[in-house]
Amino acid sequence: MVTPLDVAGLAAALIRIPSVTPDPGHSQEMLAGVLTEMGFDVVHLPFGEGSERTPNLFARLGSGSPHLCFAGHTDVVPPGAATWRHDPCSGTIEGGVLFGRGACDMKGGVAAFVAAASSFLASNPGWSGSISFLLTGDEEGPARFGTRKVLEWMQENGHTPDFCVVGEPTNPSVMGEVIKIGRRGSMNARIVVEGRQGHVAYPHRADNPVHRLVRILDALTAAPLDAGSQWFEPSSLQITSIDVGNVATNVIPASAMAALNIRFNDLHTSASLGGWIETICRQHAGRVVVTTECSGESFLTAPGGEVDVLRDAVMDVTGREPRLDTGGGTSDARFIARYCPVAEFGLVGASMHQADECVAVEDLQTLTRVYVRLLERMMT
Amino acid sequence: MVTPLDVAGLAAALIRIPSVTPDPGHSQEMLAGVLTEMGFDVVHLPFGEGSERTPNLFARLGSGSPHLCFAGHTDVVPPGAATWRHDPCSGTIEGGVLFGRGACDMKGGVAAFVAAASSFLASNPGWSGSISFLLTGDEEGPARFGTRKVLEWMQENGHTPDFCVVGEPTNPSVMGEVIKIGRRGSMNARIVVEGRQGHVAYPHRADNPVHRLVRILDALTAAPLDAGSQWFEPSSLQITSIDVGNVATNVIPASAMAALNIRFNDLHTSASLGGWIETICRQHAGRVVVTTECSGESFLTAPGGEVDVLRDAVMDVTGREPRLDTGGGTSDARFIARYCPVAEFGLVGASMHQADECVAVEDLQTLTRVYVRLLERMMT
Repeated sequence: MVTPLDVAGLAAALIRIPSVTPDPGHSQEMLAGVLTEMGFDVVHLPFGEGSERTPNLFARLGSGSPHLCFAGHTDVVPPGAATWRHDPCSGTIEGGVLFGRGACDMKGGVAAFVAAASSFLASNPGWSGSISFLLTGDEEGPARFGTRKVLEWMQENGHTPDFCVVGEPTNPSVMGEVIKIGRRGSMNARIVVEGRQGHVAYPHRADNPVHRLVRILDALTAAPLDAGSQWFEPSSLQITSIDVGNVATNVIPASAMAALNIRFNDLHTSASLGGWIETICRQHAGRVVVTTECSGESFLTAPGGEVDVLRDAVMDVTGREPRLDTGGGTSDARFIARYCPVAEFGLVGASMHQADECVAVEDLQTLTRVYVRLLERMMT
Repeated sequence: MVTPLDVAGLAAALIRIPSVTPDPGHSQEMLAGVLTEMGFDVVHLPFGEGSERTPNLFARLGSGSPHLCFAGHTDVVPPGAATWRHDPCSGTIEGGVLFGRGACDMKGGVAAFVAAASSFLASNPGWSGSISFLLTGDEEGPARFGTRKVLEWMQENGHTPDFCVVGEPTNPSVMGEVIKIGRRGSMNARIVVEGRQGHVAYPHRADNPVHRLVRILDALTAAPLDAGSQWFEPSSLQITSIDVGNVATNVIPASAMAALNIRFNDLHTSASLGGWIETICRQHAGRVVVTTECSGESFLTAPGGEVDVLRDAVMDVTGREPRLDTGGGTSDARFIARYCPVAEFGLVGASMHQADECVAVEDLQTLTRVYVRLLERMMT
């Protein structure tokens, strides 16, 4: 028999275990104990060696379908240099608000997962399906030996879920505002144009690479990449730097470099954008080197199916119809999208990564009820 | 009675007096003695204080018109790090060639001036007009306390010439090829665009100054400034550097800087070009700072009058019709052009500023005869 857990108490207990990224793992040991007590099969899955060693945890209860996975992270960003009202690791509750690093991002979300599972199991003895947890200790860092490695292991061991909910804080100001169903992709490019150095008084004997680079950058930014798609805002290309470093006013330099970042929607891939950049460069410069690096392709879990079930659960509890959104930065959902439908819904994120990070106890309870409602809609 | 001087001997004697810019003045003391002997009134005109003290010399013979002034410099550029066949200060003559720093730029030219005056005076007792010398010790350096200061003094003291010949080496390979009748102007501009810093994922909250700068630079370089004018090649704008210095790939920077140089002909002034740059900048950026610096306006002594007399003198002696040219870098002629017609004709400049700087003794003699012929055509 499972006893319902108090979400605020569990969140405060997690905050009190220091876990600045990469999490040394003690918070996951605590959670492993709680989940084992609830009947979950818990597997610790550390990946990486030495200083890169990353604690991860997979826990599953049941073996049938539907298989709902809660994905989250136990690591937090550093407290920062600013002064906090309460010690970032104290987990103080004051005036109905829980303070501490990770309160909303996302120890509060993880606590709501676990509390929701305990509450659901206590109230629904006849449920069917399976519930799992994917917890990593390296979401705020390089994310090399965290979620993506656990997903590989899950696929190899027959644990690929039917739907995954990520507990990142998605709501700008009140619970129920936003479900994230995808994210834009992000890529960096570096363009180096080689010319021929010479004296400014004799430009016909030189080949000014700066002029070629200006033509390239003007062409790359002349028109918007697109006007947006059904679920995405328009893609955006930003030149972040141009550097020549020539201090001689009478010399045409030998080379010129530009750096740019593209946040792109589902109308593009990093490969299609890389090819487009190469084509523009070739039109304006003979000797040019383009290097690109993609930190994540765009992804989308189209509404319908599980996204609608999550939306209905949010509406049942909050009375609000959440906006289905794809804006903002990046999260581990980009890795999960390769395996199964994934959506993100969590707490109010206004204080994330800041001093005095906090969450209303009422919001923790609301989020717990949303997750319970999702389990009920999927498994009863 | 003036005795004709040997030009090669005088040039070698000048080379043997070290005078790396700024000339300490001993070479001008030697010349003052020679010119006084020939009957010239010699005035030493040092300008500048301390380390900037610059020796200058003005010498005039006669008080009537036409007044022809020979302008030149006694300072030389350093010998450089390369090994010379002969000591740069030895003034060695080998195989009919005089070696040494300043051989063609322009101790050889100065010697030809002086030798021509001595020869002319010896052969033409009935001449009328006046002959003067304007010699500075700071043409190869900052040129702040040299020719331009002497010209002010000359104007104040009633010595402004009717025509001035500058003895810079103008011929690419053989005597008689080129007379310079003007030079392009040169100006530098610095454009700093101010924007608003922000995260690349949220460009609507920022204002990318790099994009504005690219538009400005594209507009400035979209079309040639002009197609050239009767005596000038087309003006040329070269972007010499763009520097942002932003190493964060996820940040839109706060400002962006570009540097450019314009070599411009007589269709422009530095003021007209500065205004044009400002106008383009205002069209593309709200907050932009443009700073300009002009190291010399363009100038031209139109053919006809004294330029034709010099050309005829060159043809009389060399049998070649010299090209009237305005190309290349800058010289002190830019200061003289504000006061009187000025043209440049000197030795073959192929070895100037290099190791083993040298001049054929025959070319020294040819140049002397050209200057004599010019004096004859103007004053007999």
